[in-house]
Amino acid sequence: MLFESPSVERLVEAFRRLPGVGKRSAERYALHLLSAPVEDAQALSEAIRVARERITTCGECCNLTESNPCPICAHPNRDHTTVCVVERPVGVMAIEKGGTYRGLYHVLNGALNPLDGIGPDELTVGRLMARLKAGGVNEVIIATNATAEGEATAMYLSKQIGAMGIAVSRIAHGVPMGGGLEFADDVTLSHAMQGRTKLG
Amino acid sequence: MLFESPSVERLVEAFRRLPGVGKRSAERYALHLLSAPVEDAQALSEAIRVARERITTCGECCNLTESNPCPICAHPNRDHTTVCVVERPVGVMAIEKGGTYRGLYHVLNGALNPLDGIGPDELTVGRLMARLKAGGVNEVIIATNATAEGEATAMYLSKQIGAMGIAVSRIAHGVPMGGGLEFADDVTLSHAMQGRTKLG
Repeated sequence: MLFESPSVERLVEAFRRLPGVGKRSAERYALHLLSAPVEDAQALSEAIRVARERITTCGECCNLTESNPCPICAHPNRDHTTVCVVERPVGVMAIEKGGTYRGLYHVLNGALNPLDGIGPDELTVGRLMARLKAGGVNEVIIATNATAEGEATAMYLSKQIGAMGIAVSRIAHGVPMGGGLEFADDVTLSHAMQGRTKLG
Repeated sequence: MLFESPSVERLVEAFRRLPGVGKRSAERYALHLLSAPVEDAQALSEAIRVARERITTCGECCNLTESNPCPICAHPNRDHTTVCVVERPVGVMAIEKGGTYRGLYHVLNGALNPLDGIGPDELTVGRLMARLKAGGVNEVIIATNATAEGEATAMYLSKQIGAMGIAVSRIAHGVPMGGGLEFADDVTLSHAMQGRTKLG
């Protein structure tokens, strides 16, 4: 046990719950906070508490936000006729970093996974459908992950949304920009072939 | 800015201060805490606060501890005639994990580094000397890191302690156990050659 101290052990355990943090990293973080100025430790403790208190989910797009509706849904200059569907808030973050997409989002909070008991009711599918039924949206871009669950979710949503007469598209999967062919795996290459676009 | 939320930004900044945590990891930790059950976030926030409140430094060995003197200094079955000098609490942790050393420790809280203005007075060298003068210690094992600063600190301490008539030794540096020669760097190999021990 680290310094035979129950409070340090609890701290290490709490750090280990973070994604991708193993025992050694958790111990390193704990030791750092205990050796660093007390203000650093207080700052992190407070930042976690305050952020968790202030952050809620947007009533429109279900993304994490400090204001409701979120700044993206409330933005007057964004294209309110296009909705991009992602699995997690991290997806919104990734696409926003690109800086070219100007439409709105919808966060599903996961993907369909019957084996784990995740059906449409466990996700925010109902709220997406209500949004689309309310009108004003012309296109839905499905940007769920390129995993079995993400693909199944994309298929399910495209059927539901297509039946409503709204255009549905899926983001392209293929060889990443800057990546040589030799670094792409078989499935990606096969997708890249199928998704080829005409030149000239 | 992540979700255009100042409180999330502050959380990401606080995570980035942890050792080895970059922007992407910090964002991943923040997003996880905001999406996870509120109890997880509270647990981490509380664990940091409580650990920082309870942990102090041992009056004897300057290691981090919840009780004073620390469990190692207070242990009746440990060898109180041997002191192992390390730079940081993480060094104590590493040696304790080995489980073979039965003596006491002394944590310097760093290494000599004149360029950064770190002299003996910035470290716990004075307290080490006071401990040794009080008597009862026969051997000091210097386990500072194998860096320029760690070596300089080892040289400095060995002169001071040797003048007091106490045996001083330095832990061995060489090829790690289980490691092939081809993976060891030049300096390590050169140390391993110089530090060779007689067989048979």
